[in-house]
Amino acid sequence: MKSPPRYPQAVNGILSVALLILTVILPSFTLAQDVLPSWNDTAAKSRIIDFVTKTTTEGGEGYVPPDERIAVFDNDGTLWSEQPYYFQLGFVLDRVKKLAPQHPEWQEKEPFKSVLANDLANVAAGGERALVELVMTTHAGMTTDEFNKIVTDWFASAKHPKTGRPFTDMTFLPMRELLDYLRAHDFRTYIVSGGGVEFMRPITEKAYGIPPEQVIGSTIVTEYALVGDVPVLRRLPELDFVDDGPGKPVGINQFIGQRPIFVAGNSDGDYEMLRWVTAGKQHGFAMLVHHTDGEREYAYDRNSSFGKLDKALNDAERRNWLVVDMKADWKSVYPK
Amino acid sequence: MKSPPRYPQAVNGILSVALLILTVILPSFTLAQDVLPSWNDTAAKSRIIDFVTKTTTEGGEGYVPPDERIAVFDNDGTLWSEQPYYFQLGFVLDRVKKLAPQHPEWQEKEPFKSVLANDLANVAAGGERALVELVMTTHAGMTTDEFNKIVTDWFASAKHPKTGRPFTDMTFLPMRELLDYLRAHDFRTYIVSGGGVEFMRPITEKAYGIPPEQVIGSTIVTEYALVGDVPVLRRLPELDFVDDGPGKPVGINQFIGQRPIFVAGNSDGDYEMLRWVTAGKQHGFAMLVHHTDGEREYAYDRNSSFGKLDKALNDAERRNWLVVDMKADWKSVYPK
Repeated sequence: MKSPPRYPQAVNGILSVALLILTVILPSFTLAQDVLPSWNDTAAKSRIIDFVTKTTTEGGEGYVPPDERIAVFDNDGTLWSEQPYYFQLGFVLDRVKKLAPQHPEWQEKEPFKSVLANDLANVAAGGERALVELVMTTHAGMTTDEFNKIVTDWFASAKHPKTGRPFTDMTFLPMRELLDYLRAHDFRTYIVSGGGVEFMRPITEKAYGIPPEQVIGSTIVTEYALVGDVPVLRRLPELDFVDDGPGKPVGINQFIGQRPIFVAGNSDGDYEMLRWVTAGKQHGFAMLVHHTDGEREYAYDRNSSFGKLDKALNDAERRNWLVVDMKADWKSVYPK
Repeated sequence: MKSPPRYPQAVNGILSVALLILTVILPSFTLAQDVLPSWNDTAAKSRIIDFVTKTTTEGGEGYVPPDERIAVFDNDGTLWSEQPYYFQLGFVLDRVKKLAPQHPEWQEKEPFKSVLANDLANVAAGGERALVELVMTTHAGMTTDEFNKIVTDWFASAKHPKTGRPFTDMTFLPMRELLDYLRAHDFRTYIVSGGGVEFMRPITEKAYGIPPEQVIGSTIVTEYALVGDVPVLRRLPELDFVDDGPGKPVGINQFIGQRPIFVAGNSDGDYEMLRWVTAGKQHGFAMLVHHTDGEREYAYDRNSSFGKLDKALNDAERRNWLVVDMKADWKSVYPK
């Protein structure tokens, strides 16, 4: 084999200058102007920037090598809205209506009857059992490929009951900027949500820049099977893993295998995840999105049936968790 | 805010030349000389290179965008040796011996008695029940952090029973080169192993360049708990997920959420995973490591108790799965 070519010294010189421009000068110009533009210049924004600066400044006391820069985000109420109900419940309701013609018996059978009558209070009265039956009816009994298409089609046409916008437009712009900002500093960003993992994966790349393998969520049992000579994965009506509350640190450990250093949540379902992240040797950064803006979004916390925030709010100050006041800290809420 | 600086045209010119050198010229020189140096120039090597070239050539018929370039590898027998027994069994045996002084009753109690007497045949005679008891005794009852340390310490001192080398030196050099080669072409490389995920994660980054979050394996149940005010994850003596056989495509779907386009295995435990990958719309590439080299490694296939390769070997030709003949196709087996 031939020996590798030598580049003349002039080319090496050019190379050095170009590398310097690319890696040192350009990024710092970009940063100074564009960091978190949808955040107001309040303490919340400063604390986030301070944390990222500290963990990414080589030689500094709080430096964390890129391998360990993992950030986890709850989804419902943290990255997008969760009122008047979790968007996945919107999918369940629409799906029941769509399947109803094939199930005439649902007209007289709860909880389907109440769904078809748009009587959400009565659905809720059926408790967890009714909800699980609705979820299994709409989420199981097909292959993973088929479910992916059902979800994708639903997101393409469904609209939020209050704003009339597609659900994927109801993501929080400041949080999307935060995801981008962290990734620009070599953080790997994950979703850790109580929602179904296969409900989220079809849209997380487009909505948040988060690929399927960085989405952790609740799962039902799937089973490998052959249809003729074609292998498929069948979704069975059986809960596998509930990625909520104490399940969140369990899911993080199972999927990621190391402790994140940044966590964002908005409810008591995120409490244990915040505890877990902030108890690590790196003293991870935790933030709670506090829904204080009844005008631009929704205002709720301690008594909400979706996204109840009580215990975590009580702990925030003494544990040094940042509470983001949506009304005061965010310049805008949704993308234009 | 100030407007961004304009770079003089000369700098832009330099930049273009440098970028061209960095992205186009340098990589092609490197490739021509260094691709898979521990592989002989046989058809196996050509088929691998052809596949990678085809899937990464923009505009070509078989082009696959980087987002979808996922490669999955079995571990035992595919990335490192698995004879005379899975290395994780070596850990179990050593751990029982280490814990024995605290358990005097084990001297008379099976399966521990046989382990302490080095009577592996008698351990095997106890069947799956004995094995599960040994695994739970040695893998559960501590926190995840504690188990990580136990495993790390074991790998630092344990030696392979035949070669006397550390187990992490018994990785296959040609496969490590293959991992590097795929990553250099923007593939994300995963391990999908029947082994315990928390047994592998402490060493996969160093051994293979694979970070913890890209290791999928079998799991036991873990539970979030507070010890005083400190959150921990406790490992419980209960099987959670067996990532073997039909469990492998299930695990791939659960963790990765999309179908890989490259798969490597060596046994019938990988059969369903190979079927799954090669049934995708991208016509994924599958390879089997065939252990044909009794001199440099081990020779076994259809009748082996560890890594039995029978059904998958029968299917290989008609499904166009590459069978790598370790003796003929590999210049060297282990790193020097």
